[in-house]
Amino acid sequence: MKLQNVPTLADIRNALEVIQPFIHKTPLLQSEQLNQLAQSALFFKCENFQKAGAFKSRGAMHALLSLDANELRRGVATHSSGNHAQALARAAMILKTDAHIVMPETAPSVKVAAVKQYGGKITFCKPTLEARESTLEAVMLKTGAELVHPYNDYTIIAGQATACLEMLQQMPSPDYVLCPVGGGGLLSGTLLTIKYLSPKTKVIACEPSGANDTWQSFKTGKLVPSLHPHTIADGLLTSLGSLTYPIIMENIDDVVTVDDNSIIDAMKLVWERMKIIIEPSSAVPVAVALSGLSFLKGKKAGIILSGGNIDLNKIPWL
Amino acid sequence: MKLQNVPTLADIRNALEVIQPFIHKTPLLQSEQLNQLAQSALFFKCENFQKAGAFKSRGAMHALLSLDANELRRGVATHSSGNHAQALARAAMILKTDAHIVMPETAPSVKVAAVKQYGGKITFCKPTLEARESTLEAVMLKTGAELVHPYNDYTIIAGQATACLEMLQQMPSPDYVLCPVGGGGLLSGTLLTIKYLSPKTKVIACEPSGANDTWQSFKTGKLVPSLHPHTIADGLLTSLGSLTYPIIMENIDDVVTVDDNSIIDAMKLVWERMKIIIEPSSAVPVAVALSGLSFLKGKKAGIILSGGNIDLNKIPWL
Repeated sequence: MKLQNVPTLADIRNALEVIQPFIHKTPLLQSEQLNQLAQSALFFKCENFQKAGAFKSRGAMHALLSLDANELRRGVATHSSGNHAQALARAAMILKTDAHIVMPETAPSVKVAAVKQYGGKITFCKPTLEARESTLEAVMLKTGAELVHPYNDYTIIAGQATACLEMLQQMPSPDYVLCPVGGGGLLSGTLLTIKYLSPKTKVIACEPSGANDTWQSFKTGKLVPSLHPHTIADGLLTSLGSLTYPIIMENIDDVVTVDDNSIIDAMKLVWERMKIIIEPSSAVPVAVALSGLSFLKGKKAGIILSGGNIDLNKIPWL
Repeated sequence: MKLQNVPTLADIRNALEVIQPFIHKTPLLQSEQLNQLAQSALFFKCENFQKAGAFKSRGAMHALLSLDANELRRGVATHSSGNHAQALARAAMILKTDAHIVMPETAPSVKVAAVKQYGGKITFCKPTLEARESTLEAVMLKTGAELVHPYNDYTIIAGQATACLEMLQQMPSPDYVLCPVGGGGLLSGTLLTIKYLSPKTKVIACEPSGANDTWQSFKTGKLVPSLHPHTIADGLLTSLGSLTYPIIMENIDDVVTVDDNSIIDAMKLVWERMKIIIEPSSAVPVAVALSGLSFLKGKKAGIILSGGNIDLNKIPWL
């Protein structure tokens, strides 16, 4: 059954238990060179190595495993062209049902191919929010598929919370956790896990300055939507949701923004020194760790590398 | 003391024991997607995650730890602009001595920077083999530094052999091991380890068709030098040595060549699907695994990913 309330610790533990057979326990890596540059002890939770290349597989898998047999048979639907779409298509393939993905007809072919690779059923629409929503509604009416929202859903939030739950098994009591924020699914899950299990740990939301709606929301105390985001971190363009916003405002310690140049530099540095591929959204908390914040000096920080899906024909520094 | 004879199993085990505090035990990774493409069970020994970004740290560390205190004080020297130079500079830094590296004045700045980062003392020379050798001789005469050859040295070979020794601890009795070959240090070490510990395993040397001197040597039964190599796999340009050649000819099962397009495709595929950075030389055995060889179908193969050092401003498929 889908969760109707803010996930409890038991909900998050249960989420990890049920999704475990279908996801990777991702490694926690360190880099001497990055530690030196940041003057901190950094621990990277590598969700770029997660199934379908991002933490989104956790939430999507949890959402599908929470449906009853009838709901599952009718399939699931979302509008997205990013990592959630791939994760949902993969989860549906594993559970032998359909994932209906509404994508703008302008979506890059590499993203279309990624969804198709997992058997996702794509419906194209005009590249406007109105077209996406009305097309999604039509698809759901026709198929009876269940909407799986990418973040504004407690079942999804509990799924994303398992990344931090695993990280705490790998590194108990960090001083800080740095987490990227877009719609806030990963961040609100992380905040709940930390609140339940390591309340002394401070959580810093890391956001591109070109999509700083969470920073604005934090400063003004109200949900500021992401109206004209412009950043290389293409996974962090969306606004907070009605469910993620209150969890974030209640629990967050700070929001720090970084510009696109710092994000690109951090991304290149991770590729070069750690020999792992991360996408721009993952580089946002790395850029924050390298930005010279005095409170991080000498501290132990967990950094969630959210994903590794990037078009290798478009390298941002070239 | 430096090894004077073909390394025994005891030599290789001892090498691993002495270098262990200074190197990474690198992970052995798998990829469902690459298994499907190759129709084999592939296990990737990730020396791209090794210290200084390549397996060369094993041999260099072993060579320096084999010197006596007097020799060590006088420092070490080599001519190389590649991974051996970085590995030697790093080993010298750890053991608080000097690494004198002779490099052609045309060496890419990224390689110069990499050696300097580990405190290597660089002497530039004209970009000819004669200039490199005479400059190296002059440096050695002046400093009393000990030559550490990148591969034609039993102490180095025993060091490189530890990559396969570790791999066998992580995956006992593979059907095949696929190993890149340039000068043959890694390959001859791998062959010795396999001969001693898993003699039923077949070892396939993997070579770029544009630098196919090992293939030619294997076919003709004599040491054919690498005269005008032309390949993207810049770590595999050199000829076999007088010490590596006989070990290879006595123990190798086959040599398979792949062209540069296959190497680049394999490299991109590993970046894209496994989210790890490998250099072109590492992609050579991957390209072999993906080339549809019938004898690999359904078999378990260990693949040594030799390194991950690449200029990220020059991506070969762009």
